[in-house]
Amino acid sequence: MTARARLGAWLTSPRVQNAIIAVIVVNAITLGMETSTAIMSRFGGLVRAVDMLCLTIFVAEIALKLVAFGPRFFRSGWNLFDFFVVAIALLPASEGVSVLRALRILRALRVISVAPQLRRVVEGLLTALPGMASVFLLMTLIFYIGAVMATKLFGAAFPEWFGGLGRSAYTLFQIMTLESWSMGIVRPVMERFPYAWAFFVPFIMITTFAVVNLIVGLIVNSMQDAHEAEDVESRDAYRDGVMARLDAIERKLDDRG
Amino acid sequence: MTARARLGAWLTSPRVQNAIIAVIVVNAITLGMETSTAIMSRFGGLVRAVDMLCLTIFVAEIALKLVAFGPRFFRSGWNLFDFFVVAIALLPASEGVSVLRALRILRALRVISVAPQLRRVVEGLLTALPGMASVFLLMTLIFYIGAVMATKLFGAAFPEWFGGLGRSAYTLFQIMTLESWSMGIVRPVMERFPYAWAFFVPFIMITTFAVVNLIVGLIVNSMQDAHEAEDVESRDAYRDGVMARLDAIERKLDDRG
Amino acid sequence: MTARARLGAWLTSPRVQNAIIAVIVVNAITLGMETSTAIMSRFGGLVRAVDMLCLTIFVAEIALKLVAFGPRFFRSGWNLFDFFVVAIALLPASEGVSVLRALRILRALRVISVAPQLRRVVEGLLTALPGMASVFLLMTLIFYIGAVMATKLFGAAFPEWFGGLGRSAYTLFQIMTLESWSMGIVRPVMERFPYAWAFFVPFIMITTFAVVNLIVGLIVNSMQDAHEAEDVESRDAYRDGVMARLDAIERKLDDRG
Amino acid sequence: MTARARLGAWLTSPRVQNAIIAVIVVNAITLGMETSTAIMSRFGGLVRAVDMLCLTIFVAEIALKLVAFGPRFFRSGWNLFDFFVVAIALLPASEGVSVLRALRILRALRVISVAPQLRRVVEGLLTALPGMASVFLLMTLIFYIGAVMATKLFGAAFPEWFGGLGRSAYTLFQIMTLESWSMGIVRPVMERFPYAWAFFVPFIMITTFAVVNLIVGLIVNSMQDAHEAEDVESRDAYRDGVMARLDAIERKLDDRG
Repeated sequence: MTARARLGAWLTSPRVQNAIIAVIVVNAITLGMETSTAIMSRFGGLVRAVDMLCLTIFVAEIALKLVAFGPRFFRSGWNLFDFFVVAIALLPASEGVSVLRALRILRALRVISVAPQLRRVVEGLLTALPGMASVFLLMTLIFYIGAVMATKLFGAAFPEWFGGLGRSAYTLFQIMTLESWSMGIVRPVMERFPYAWAFFVPFIMITTFAVVNLIVGLIVNSMQDAHEAEDVESRDAYRDGVMARLDAIERKLDDRG
Repeated sequence: MTARARLGAWLTSPRVQNAIIAVIVVNAITLGMETSTAIMSRFGGLVRAVDMLCLTIFVAEIALKLVAFGPRFFRSGWNLFDFFVVAIALLPASEGVSVLRALRILRALRVISVAPQLRRVVEGLLTALPGMASVFLLMTLIFYIGAVMATKLFGAAFPEWFGGLGRSAYTLFQIMTLESWSMGIVRPVMERFPYAWAFFVPFIMITTFAVVNLIVGLIVNSMQDAHEAEDVESRDAYRDGVMARLDAIERKLDDRG
Repeated sequence: MTARARLGAWLTSPRVQNAIIAVIVVNAITLGMETSTAIMSRFGGLVRAVDMLCLTIFVAEIALKLVAFGPRFFRSGWNLFDFFVVAIALLPASEGVSVLRALRILRALRVISVAPQLRRVVEGLLTALPGMASVFLLMTLIFYIGAVMATKLFGAAFPEWFGGLGRSAYTLFQIMTLESWSMGIVRPVMERFPYAWAFFVPFIMITTFAVVNLIVGLIVNSMQDAHEAEDVESRDAYRDGVMARLDAIERKLDDRG
Repeated sequence: MTARARLGAWLTSPRVQNAIIAVIVVNAITLGMETSTAIMSRFGGLVRAVDMLCLTIFVAEIALKLVAFGPRFFRSGWNLFDFFVVAIALLPASEGVSVLRALRILRALRVISVAPQLRRVVEGLLTALPGMASVFLLMTLIFYIGAVMATKLFGAAFPEWFGGLGRSAYTLFQIMTLESWSMGIVRPVMERFPYAWAFFVPFIMITTFAVVNLIVGLIVNSMQDAHEAEDVESRDAYRDGVMARLDAIERKLDDRG
C-alpha cells in the first residue's frame, strides 16, 4: 500500500469523515451567527477566527484529497461539488462582495456529500430528474411561447409585468404557481383587454395539467422501482424452481416410459 | 416507387425532419427577438427577412406534403395542426393585427409534431383526457349551477365579480384555484351577505374533491398501464407454460395407466 | 304485469329517460337565461313559460313514479334527491325569495341521477367518503380545538377574524387553504402577538399533513380496488387450476402405487 | 387477581372508557362555551362548575391509573400525553394566563387516546414520520442555508421580512407555501435587487420538488404496506403448497423408480 493509498484510506475513514461533518456543522453555526449584529459586535473576532479555521481545514482536506487521488478526484460529482463550494470563499471579494459572502453558507451543503443518509436522499431526487426531461422541455417550450405572446399582447400596456421576455416568463411562472394570478394580474389586465382570460385560463390549465402529469410520472416510476426491487427476484426464483421441478418429473416419467 | 412516393419518403427522412426542426428553432428565436424594441431598431430588417424565409420554408414543406400525400395529408391530426399553425401567418392582418401577430409564435409548437420525443409526451398527455371526460362533464355542470346561483344571489351587489354567467364562472374558477378566495372575494361578499360562506365553502370542498379524484384516477390509470405493459405478458407466458407441463405429465401418466 | 308495473317500466324506459334529460337541459338553459336582464326584458314571458312547463313535467314525472312504485320510491337515495330538488320550486316564496329562486337551478343536478355515466362518477366519489370518515373526524377535532384556542388568544384583538368560534373556524379554513395566510392574517396578528407563528405554523403543518394523508389513502384505496377487480379473479382461477392438476397427478400416482 | 389488577381492568373496561369519552366531549363543549361572552354572562357559574367537575374526573382517573399501573403508566406514550394535557390545567396561572387558559382545550385531544378508531388514524400518521426523517433533515438544511443567505442579502433593506434568521425562515416558509410570494415579497425585493428572482425561483423549485418527493414517498410506502398485508401471505402459502406437492410427486416417482 503506497503512501498515497494510505492517505486516501485515512481521508475516507469514518473517523475523519465524522470530524469533517463536525467542522461543517460548526462552520454553518458561525456563518449563521454572522447574520446577527448583536453577536458580531461582542464576539465578532472569535466567530471570524473559527470561520477562518474551518475554511483552512476544508482547503487542507481538499488539497490532501487531490494529493491522494490525483486527477481521479474530479471524476466524482460530489468532489467537484465540494471543490467549488469551498473555492467560492477564496474568490477575490473586490466586487459583488455581499453576494459572494452570502454564497459562503453553501459550504453547509457539504454535509450532504459527507453524510451517507442525506447523500442517498439527494441521489434519489436526482435520479428522478432524467425521466422528467421531456416534460421539462415541453414546459420550457410552453413558457417561451407564452412569454412571446404575453409580451406582444400586453407588453405595451403593462411593461412592469410583460415588458420583455424575462419579465413575462417571471409573471407566467407566478401565474403557474397560482399566486395572485387573478386579483393581482389577470383582473387588472382584463380591464384593458377584456378577453385576456382566453390567454391566461388555458395557460393555467395546460401548465397545471403538465405539472400534475409530472408528479403522476414520478409516483408511477417510484412504485415500479420499489415493486421490482422487492418482488421480482423472489418471484423469478420461484418460477424457475417450479419449472425445474416439472422438468425433473417429466424426465423421470420419460425414463420409465 | 412513384415520384410522389419518393417525395413523401424524402419529406419524412430524418435529414429533412432535422432541417425542419432547425428552421422551427431559428424562427422561434426571431419571433422572440421581435419582442425586443432594442434588437428590432438595429436588426429589424434582418429579423423580418429571416422570419419571412422560415415562413416560406414551412409553406413549401406543407405544399410538398400535400402533393406527396394528397387527401391522406389531412387524416393525421398532427398534419392538421401544422397546417393551421402555418396558415395563421397567411391570414389578412387587417384587424386584430396584434392578436394575429402574437399567434404566429404558435408555429414553435410545430417542434412537438416533428420531434418524436416531445410528440410521445404530448400523445401521452392526450390519451389521459378521454378517461377524464365524465369528471369534466360533472365539473362543467357544477360550474354552470354555481355560476347561475352566484349571479342570482350576489350579481346585483357585486356586478364586477358576479354580474353575469361569464363573470361568475371566471370568479368561481379563481375561487377553485384558491387564489385570494377569502380575503379578495368571500370576506367582502360576507360583509353584505353574512351567510355567503355557506355557498363558497361547500363549493371549494366539492370542486377540490373532484379535482383530487381526477388526479387519483390519473395515477391509478397510469399505474395499471405501466403494470400491464410490464408484468402481464411474462406472467401469462409462465402460467401457460406451467399448465402445458402439467397437461403433458398427466397425459403421460394416463398413457401408462 | 299490472298497470302499475307497466307504468314503472315505461317511466324507466330509455325513451322517457332521454326525454327527461332533454327537459332538464332545456330547464337549465332557461334558468341560466333568467340571470340576463337583457334576455329577460325581451323574452321574459317565454322563458318563464318554458320554466313553468319544465317544472310541470318534473312534478308529473315524480307523481307518476309515486303511483308506480308506491313507498318503494323513497328507498332510493337518487329518488329522494329528485324529490327534494323539485320540491324546492314549490315552496312558498314569501321570504328569502332570492335564495329559494337561486336554489331552483339545483334542478339541473337531476341530470346526474338520470344519466348513468355521471351517476357512476358521483357514486364513485361517494364510495370514497366512508373511508375518509375517521380522518374527517380528526380534522373536525383539530378545527374545534384550533378555533377555541384562536378565539381565546386573538379574539379580543382581532374580532373580525377570531371574534367567535364560527369566525375562527372560517379563518382557520382559509389558513388551511393557504390563502393569504401570512400577509393577510398571521403577519398582522404577529405585530400584536410576536409568537403567533407558534400557533399558526404548526396548525398549517398538521392540517396539510392530514389532508395529504387523506389523498394518499384515496390513492391507495383506488389502486387496490382497481388491482383486485382485475387481477385477483384470474389469479385465483389459475391457482385453483394448478392445485387441481397436482391433486389429480398425485391421485393417479397413488392409484398405481 | 390483586386489587390493583382489578382496578386496572375496571379503568380500561369499555364502560369506563365510554364514560371518559362523554366527559371529554362535555368538557370540550364547556370550554367552547367559555369563548362566548353572551353565554358566560348568563351561565358563567354553571359552565365553570362543569369544567371544574370534568377536570376533577380527569385528575381522579389519572391518579387511579397511577395507583393501578405504577411506573408502567409512564411507559405508554398515550398515557404521558394524557398526563401532560391534564397537568396544563393545574399549572399556577400567575403569568401568561391567557395562553395557559387557551391550552386547556388541548384536553379535548384526549378523545384521540381513548377512542380506538381515532387512535389508529393518528398512529398511522405517526408511523409515516420516521420514513420522512431524512427528507425533513434536508429541508431543515435548505431552510437554514436559505435563511442565512436571505438575511445577508436582503436583511438590511427589508428588515421586517429578512431582518434575522427567524424572520427569514418564517418568510421562506411563507414563500414555500406560495402565499403572496411574488406580489407580496419577491416583486418588492426585485425593485431594489433586480436579480432577487435568481434566489427565490430556485428556492421555490427545490422546496416544492422536495415536498412532492415526500408525498410520493408516502404514497409508495402506503401502497407497499397495503400490498404486503394483503397479498404476500396468501401468495407465499400458495407457493409453499405448490412446492410441497411437487416434492411429494417426485418422491413417489423416486419410490417406484
